Amino acid sequence: MAAWAERLAGVRGVLLDISGVLYDCDAGGGSAIAGSVEAVARLKQSHLKMRFCTNDSQKSRGELVGLLQQLGFDISEDEVTSPAPATCRILKERGLRPHLLIHERVRSEFDEIDTSNPNCVVIADAAESFSYQNMNKAFQVLMELENPVLISLGKGRYYKETSGLVLDVGAYMKALEYACGIKAEVVGKPSPEFFQAALQAIGVEAHQAHG
Amino acid sequence: MAAWAERLAGVRGVLLDISGVLYDCDAGGGSAIAGSVEAVARLKQSHLKMRFCTNDSQKSRGELVGLLQQLGFDISEDEVTSPAPATCRILKERGLRPHLLIHERVRSEFDEIDTSNPNCVVIADAAESFSYQNMNKAFQVLMELENPVLISLGKGRYYKETSGLVLDVGAYMKALEYACGIKAEVVGKPSPEFFQAALQAIGVEAHQAHG
Repeated sequence: MAAWAERLAGVRGVLLDISGVLYDCDAGGGSAIAGSVEAVARLKQSHLKMRFCTNDSQKSRGELVGLLQQLGFDISEDEVTSPAPATCRILKERGLRPHLLIHERVRSEFDEIDTSNPNCVVIADAAESFSYQNMNKAFQVLMELENPVLISLGKGRYYKETSGLVLDVGAYMKALEYACGIKAEVVGKPSPEFFQAALQAIGVEAHQAHG
Repeated sequence: MAAWAERLAGVRGVLLDISGVLYDCDAGGGSAIAGSVEAVARLKQSHLKMRFCTNDSQKSRGELVGLLQQLGFDISEDEVTSPAPATCRILKERGLRPHLLIHERVRSEFDEIDTSNPNCVVIADAAESFSYQNMNKAFQVLMELENPVLISLGKGRYYKETSGLVLDVGAYMKALEYACGIKAEVVGKPSPEFFQAALQAIGVEAHQAHG
């Protein structure tokens, strides 16, 4: 405990990952990782500010929080930093109208975004929607742009499902990068801007945070 | 013509590409490119040795040659260097048993290859077979190997179909490379070994060849 106290000296805020830290995702939804519900409750009672950070781009924030609440976590939507809302801010700021290659379950996050006459491509963990046809469509949109912009919600290589390891969005991002000869912009961990946005939401500076 | 004569001085052999050079592929099969049937006929009458080189990994060599013959080309199977037979040689030499992520139409080229208990992955232009499910399967096979070997039949970024540009095998090769943290071995153009094999087949040295 002394080591912990030392590590936490000067710390004012904590960023917590969700998948694989608070809960494990599975076909039925997920299960809380032992001790994590209690850990979150104790952190909430402490003087530390906290924020949940996830790269999960396969569910809407509402759906994810609903699931966590069912598992017993004290968590609300406005405590979560996730790539889809961060991407929407970027799209609006830069006047970008995306072609979306995303999971149906996360489409509601982009409800307010103009997707007519696309001038960029946004990809997220689309899972089964990463068909050859859908990848070609995204590729064609990029190739028709004078300045192709590809925004990727995270760049994970793979993750674990009940059925075994499966490819994450990063693999498909690399496929499009190579085919188009471009570099994607990554929104989500490990991008510094993403962590900054999470810290800003709780009014904590980077040197005062623990992840 | 003087410039050509100069360029051809000392040339004993010619390597000819097929797709996009002899014919254009389309949904109905393909059409000969203007002048190409005659050009091949004239080259055959000359003193030059010739060999056809293709990265097309979506058709078997037999199917490709049959199509070209229908279009009027004087060509036989044993005049073609293509990645699938070259890959089969490598698999046999190194005792590799592939998990195949390939187009159904090219599967016959691997008829004599042992695919039980795979210790490598071979990918080709699988087109619609590049589903999320099939990509995950190939990925899982690689991740279970102590020394993952990924062999890619070519590394093309994209090509043109009647419907527009479509992703080629190289994009999917990059996806697997990134997810597994490995580097694929490319069989086909532009690999020097592939051109060497084509030249060897006609008994010509590299400095005596024209592509």
